Amino acid sequence: MTRNYKFTISYDGSRYYGWERQPDQPLTVQGKIETVLDRMTGREGNEIISAGRTDAGVHALALTANAHLDTGLSPTEIRDYLNQYLPEDICVKDVRIAGDRFHARYNCVGRTYRYTCYIGKLKPVFDRKYVYVPDRIPDISRVREAAEILIGRHDFGSFCATPHMKKSTVRTVDLIDISVNNDLLTFTYHGDGFLRGMVRIMTGTLLEVGWGKRAPESMTELLEARDRSLAGFTVPAKGLCLVEDEYNKG
Amino acid sequence: MTRNYKFTISYDGSRYYGWERQPDQPLTVQGKIETVLDRMTGREGNEIISAGRTDAGVHALALTANAHLDTGLSPTEIRDYLNQYLPEDICVKDVRIAGDRFHARYNCVGRTYRYTCYIGKLKPVFDRKYVYVPDRIPDISRVREAAEILIGRHDFGSFCATPHMKKSTVRTVDLIDISVNNDLLTFTYHGDGFLRGMVRIMTGTLLEVGWGKRAPESMTELLEARDRSLAGFTVPAKGLCLVEDEYNKG
Repeated sequence: MTRNYKFTISYDGSRYYGWERQPDQPLTVQGKIETVLDRMTGREGNEIISAGRTDAGVHALALTANAHLDTGLSPTEIRDYLNQYLPEDICVKDVRIAGDRFHARYNCVGRTYRYTCYIGKLKPVFDRKYVYVPDRIPDISRVREAAEILIGRHDFGSFCATPHMKKSTVRTVDLIDISVNNDLLTFTYHGDGFLRGMVRIMTGTLLEVGWGKRAPESMTELLEARDRSLAGFTVPAKGLCLVEDEYNKG
Repeated sequence: MTRNYKFTISYDGSRYYGWERQPDQPLTVQGKIETVLDRMTGREGNEIISAGRTDAGVHALALTANAHLDTGLSPTEIRDYLNQYLPEDICVKDVRIAGDRFHARYNCVGRTYRYTCYIGKLKPVFDRKYVYVPDRIPDISRVREAAEILIGRHDFGSFCATPHMKKSTVRTVDLIDISVNNDLLTFTYHGDGFLRGMVRIMTGTLLEVGWGKRAPESMTELLEARDRSLAGFTVPAKGLCLVEDEYNKG
């Protein structure tokens, strides 16, 4: 009997070409999981749908996905089967039965991303695959001032990596938290959705504000311009981690 | 002018054949550092001496080493030069001028090692290179009972990986702390010195006690036997980390 299952998945994205399955590209997270689902169900063509499609090199702590599967296994057995056959850098943390109409992408109402910079004097030996080391330490108060302007419901076209985006580029970002903890500078973003590259372009732009290359107030005109070329650089993928996806109860 | 310098070094040992330089083996930590010291001083044959020689795959948080160097650079400049040219998995945390007779190995009076096991239900995606995942969760009270017997000044010949050890195998271990924190089971060892493989063989033996394969009391006869073949398995290198080396003041 085919049922819809909700998955919570963690992965180290370092060696993957992102979440999304691609033809002739074996190293995608979706591809790896679907291969094991095919093996588990004994039939090809299983599809797992995630809340968001992380880019190459981006990590996930608790990504939500769903898949309609024809299997006699219990949710816990599905989880254990997947963890047994998936590589060690992908972990299925949870599997549960979902309503037939549950769709991980369309039903997602909130996403949290975290971007981590190492700002210590030395080198992040053990965290080096999960943090970005900027050349200079930014002025945090300037970064926070600029972030305040980005919070809200805006057209984030200036922060979109897709060149000719036909769909709306309006999104609501209700949290940009900038915190410093020991040698780590962390940007936490929460919103209803993020455009392709948006978190990394926002972070790069905020760092440029912190380095004095841009004024915090310039964020207002940058939002108005809706022109990617006017925003800052895209910070490297390795510092980015999808923290979690949110859904309404019921 | 040649001076003696004391180094504090951190490294991810995953891809190295251990600390010690080996002929025709470019991937050793000592070899990597000495290559950069040669470049820095403009002359070949520099030697850096560590408190201990970690095995292949073992990590270090704060290993102490010393080297006699002929350089006009300040200690901070030496540190920065090394960090610039060393690979990203080796970090020189500190450099300072030491007395001419300071010897990192002979003067070391205490060493702390930590062995980490992941005992959660899932997979340690982000820590996978720094933890060992045992097949079964051991009974911690049995492990602690056995560890108590190992603490003290003993002949640790049963826990020595060197087959025909000519020197004394007597060592003093004054701490074996077993702690469980979230999904991690950590063994912390402190002593005046450790034989080759000793921490990993002790940990494997203690895990076997925790799994019910050995009685805690059997540690007494195991110490008396001084026979490696009677002790437990050697746990994998990746879970082991040298935490720090100690020296007397002055």
